[in-house]
Amino acid sequence: MKQMPASKAYRLLEAGPIVLVTTAQDGRPNVMTMGFHMVVQHDPPLIGCVIGPWDHSHAALRATGECVIAIPTVDLARKVVDIGNCSGTEVDKFAKFRLTLKPAKEVGAPLIAECLANIECRVADTTLADRYNLFVLQAVRIWTDPERKERRTLHHNGDGTFTVDGRTIDLKERMVLWKQFQD
Amino acid sequence: MKQMPASKAYRLLEAGPIVLVTTAQDGRPNVMTMGFHMVVQHDPPLIGCVIGPWDHSHAALRATGECVIAIPTVDLARKVVDIGNCSGTEVDKFAKFRLTLKPAKEVGAPLIAECLANIECRVADTTLADRYNLFVLQAVRIWTDPERKERRTLHHNGDGTFTVDGRTIDLKERMVLWKQFQD
Repeated sequence: MKQMPASKAYRLLEAGPIVLVTTAQDGRPNVMTMGFHMVVQHDPPLIGCVIGPWDHSHAALRATGECVIAIPTVDLARKVVDIGNCSGTEVDKFAKFRLTLKPAKEVGAPLIAECLANIECRVADTTLADRYNLFVLQAVRIWTDPERKERRTLHHNGDGTFTVDGRTIDLKERMVLWKQFQD
Repeated sequence: MKQMPASKAYRLLEAGPIVLVTTAQDGRPNVMTMGFHMVVQHDPPLIGCVIGPWDHSHAALRATGECVIAIPTVDLARKVVDIGNCSGTEVDKFAKFRLTLKPAKEVGAPLIAECLANIECRVADTTLADRYNLFVLQAVRIWTDPERKERRTLHHNGDGTFTVDGRTIDLKERMVLWKQFQD
């Protein structure tokens, strides 16, 4: 896996892919599926996300203040859904779904080797965590897999159907006010 | 345009489409392009979004507490980018981009007739507005255009390129814990 600057987290998340989130508490890793997230700020790179007490990961995120956001692609679609439909209280999801853990550099939560990218995050703000389960995370390190052939991400339509990435339109030359974000 | 329940806002936004946001202040409507948004809660339907003081719409949103999130499709791609690259302080963007305003029902901000869907919103929480320009909105009414042929939305990759919706994968039968969101 190759690194990219943490300040480029918006390149991976703004388009709204469904993501996996890993945590680790007391030596025990867990993974969940997440669709409620957004970019809050380019740099320092802040990410908003909703992880509720109905998610087993909630307690680990609260306790450790760390997680990894991993971005899966279309070949992992069934696993992504199944991960979101069982609980870490009952199963070791890494074993069940045969995901390969790799140690992160800045946080205790693991990277997922099978994903397109992994964003190491620290909780930056919990002001709205009690009210809406809304955490503001700061991306601290990003790993990508530039060798990966399949790069199409999935977008959850909220009902169990997912839109797969289609073609890309390049409108960079029209982004006159936002040139600094194209480097 | 046809209505759908406001509680279904997540069906339109979870997949991360680039959106337009309208506001109106002192009888003057404005529109901006927004990529930093997420679903916060299914029901009551809450939406998080970032609208900064660099956006002319920021002042109107602060003053009126109302906006409309309109969802454009791929045929509007150039307009979506160009709307985000000029300011309502200088131009009447509705005239410039020949968008058709329609009155909303619950809010003073207008609907955009050319869009796939329009979500009337009221500001529900400004706790993080000063710190991150993060507003929590509540969807109060939704309009969709079921007759529209082109339904593919755009996802901003953060750099002036956009991914167009490709095919849809139906994995509803695996969503055993989330059946209540499929109605």
